[in-house]
Amino acid sequence: MKFQRTALQVEEAAARILERLQPGRTETVPLAEAWNRYLAEPLAADQPVPHFRRSGMDGYALRAEETAGASEDSPVRLAVTGIIPCGSIYDRRLEPGQAVRIMTGAAVPDGADAVVRLEDTLPEEEGEGGAVSILRSAKTGANISEIGLEIVQGEKLLEPGRRIGPGEAALLAMFGAAQVKVYARPRVAVFATGSELLAVEEPLAPGKIRNSNSYMLLAQLREAGCEPVLAGAIPDELELARQAVTAAMDDYDMVITTGGVSVGDYDILYDLTTGWDGELLFNKLAMRPGSPTTASIRRGKLLFALSGNPAACFVGFELLVRPALRKLMGGVDVGLGAFPARLKADRLKTDAKFTRFVRGVRTVGPEGQLWAAPVGVDASSITVSLRDADCLIVVPPGDAPLVQETLVRVIPLGGSRL
Amino acid sequence: MKFQRTALQVEEAAARILERLQPGRTETVPLAEAWNRYLAEPLAADQPVPHFRRSGMDGYALRAEETAGASEDSPVRLAVTGIIPCGSIYDRRLEPGQAVRIMTGAAVPDGADAVVRLEDTLPEEEGEGGAVSILRSAKTGANISEIGLEIVQGEKLLEPGRRIGPGEAALLAMFGAAQVKVYARPRVAVFATGSELLAVEEPLAPGKIRNSNSYMLLAQLREAGCEPVLAGAIPDELELARQAVTAAMDDYDMVITTGGVSVGDYDILYDLTTGWDGELLFNKLAMRPGSPTTASIRRGKLLFALSGNPAACFVGFELLVRPALRKLMGGVDVGLGAFPARLKADRLKTDAKFTRFVRGVRTVGPEGQLWAAPVGVDASSITVSLRDADCLIVVPPGDAPLVQETLVRVIPLGGSRL
Repeated sequence: MKFQRTALQVEEAAARILERLQPGRTETVPLAEAWNRYLAEPLAADQPVPHFRRSGMDGYALRAEETAGASEDSPVRLAVTGIIPCGSIYDRRLEPGQAVRIMTGAAVPDGADAVVRLEDTLPEEEGEGGAVSILRSAKTGANISEIGLEIVQGEKLLEPGRRIGPGEAALLAMFGAAQVKVYARPRVAVFATGSELLAVEEPLAPGKIRNSNSYMLLAQLREAGCEPVLAGAIPDELELARQAVTAAMDDYDMVITTGGVSVGDYDILYDLTTGWDGELLFNKLAMRPGSPTTASIRRGKLLFALSGNPAACFVGFELLVRPALRKLMGGVDVGLGAFPARLKADRLKTDAKFTRFVRGVRTVGPEGQLWAAPVGVDASSITVSLRDADCLIVVPPGDAPLVQETLVRVIPLGGSRL
Repeated sequence: MKFQRTALQVEEAAARILERLQPGRTETVPLAEAWNRYLAEPLAADQPVPHFRRSGMDGYALRAEETAGASEDSPVRLAVTGIIPCGSIYDRRLEPGQAVRIMTGAAVPDGADAVVRLEDTLPEEEGEGGAVSILRSAKTGANISEIGLEIVQGEKLLEPGRRIGPGEAALLAMFGAAQVKVYARPRVAVFATGSELLAVEEPLAPGKIRNSNSYMLLAQLREAGCEPVLAGAIPDELELARQAVTAAMDDYDMVITTGGVSVGDYDILYDLTTGWDGELLFNKLAMRPGSPTTASIRRGKLLFALSGNPAACFVGFELLVRPALRKLMGGVDVGLGAFPARLKADRLKTDAKFTRFVRGVRTVGPEGQLWAAPVGVDASSITVSLRDADCLIVVPPGDAPLVQETLVRVIPLGGSRL
């Protein structure tokens, strides 16, 4: 039975997951804490920007028509009736023959329809009650940002599910969002199974290795915006294992296990997910590495059983877990963001039946051509190549190896877009 | 005097900053908390990986020479003298005529020099004391990862200054780094100056705008791995301003101000940094936006005075502040990571004297060609274009506009590499 698993294509596996998931819990956080969170409500402009006629220059606000013909040889002299620092208001109307000293960003007074920059003027008597010579003619509207020039009232600015970066934070601040409704960081429990595993702080022992997958997954989960928790090992006994995993699925938003999923004598996870109230979504994928990747859903929450092989665990996370987490945080387009590039390798072997996802590194040629080169001289350099990789090169199944300059598709790692 | 500033090239400005900076404080954190921190010590392999002869398959460990000529029609029968789960040790030597059932990842016993995978065997009597028929001949070394195959002892794995992502976390775990020495997150104080500024929670008022730059900078600083603090406004009075800024420079690792640096009547920061014990590094850059960007250093700490214009503030941060922060966290190559791309725009205007840094978005053509297109139909869409941009397009000074397909250099935003 365990040997009769049907290998599913990765795209189909991802679709099975995503169609069953709903966006998760939301919470409200102060804007100053909202970086890298995912917005759970839209932002629209309740005011135009600018919301007043804004001066784009330090200079003098005046009536453009009065500057007709002005030049250094033939300046136009105007009475200076005020000074408008940024944030202040000139509470009268500008009358003919008048000019007002104005700062960049300040509100242009009624009656004025242009700003002449300071460099094109010659103050004669300083300040209010003084006068200024205008040395250059101005067109109507010169150096004035009209109301709504940047953003019109009602404009949709941010959609739910959008990640809050610097630009989003600036827009939220502009429109007074001191508190922001965001998706809660998914709490994810990580189990590592395998009697060969030592804790990181333990000395090495014959036949044993330290549990590095858990720490790799912690980093991937944090990178994806989650709050991961190390949940220890899954008990060896089936009923205890089932209790531990279902309890974690009740307590957390998602559960990930690494190890114990290959078709060996000690595969407890497969047995675990056959006799319970969850649904098995898939237990074999047509991909290398990571073909034994398993996913189940129970009461709306996912259980991923990733391989114990570091590279397979890593790839399974990037291709299947990361998009699921994005959807939990309101993501709309949760695809892998693959893009085309040319292969930089003399030869990249194909698998007869399965798609290979080869760890690679992107470079850009002198004319802007994207290249992707496999990292690691040897496929067994499993963990070291994870350090060096910034993408996965997609190698479709085939009989012949891919050669230099082959057009391939490349998946950026860590949720980066390009 | 204020009008006689000499515009410095951005590269020269960055060099002036970086040559005066030293890497900052370090601290030790648990590995589980080390994601996105910067390593402050090297990691080298104190053991080879694997540190024992590891089986790459589920199957039977045996002597390769004894399988010569084995096939389905002519199997070789061996006594099964044990079973080696992952993490266990077979404490005897494998003798001629014997095979041991072995799991993927387990230690191959002395005396065995090949592993035949399960699919190529036929167990005759189960378990220890039983027997197995080998259906296929094996070469010496088959399915065994020799000691040091992945990593040789002494290999340098991670250098100080390296960001800890999933691959780095896995390597640190493999070599027992339960506690990791990292650079402390720089604590950065952000002042926003300008009497036009309202707090985010305040209602809009005539001539006033909400303080969005501070929140944009908070996000940029968090993205760069810092702990930012909103320090409020700088007092209007020179001596109080100087006290506030120097006190912040004593308390924090860096101080950033936004606003109050343009050549207007109310430029307090310029005056502040002329009569003190700090050194002015530059106060005008040959770039647009952001030409009034100012940097000073005092007692080894930087004071950046960024423009109050959102786009200029943003660009000043990306080009000058971010590399400085990287250096504080041990970064060795702290360049901007610019790469070539083709311009996707009918026309992009140049500045006669200054380099323009135009907010843009990257796309990839069907054959892997990188393109960069300016975002925002209008240059005045200042904050909205920050939302949409993922790069800065470098436009060198010139007389003619750049045209479609011009080869340009592009700087990725947010510290991303490509």
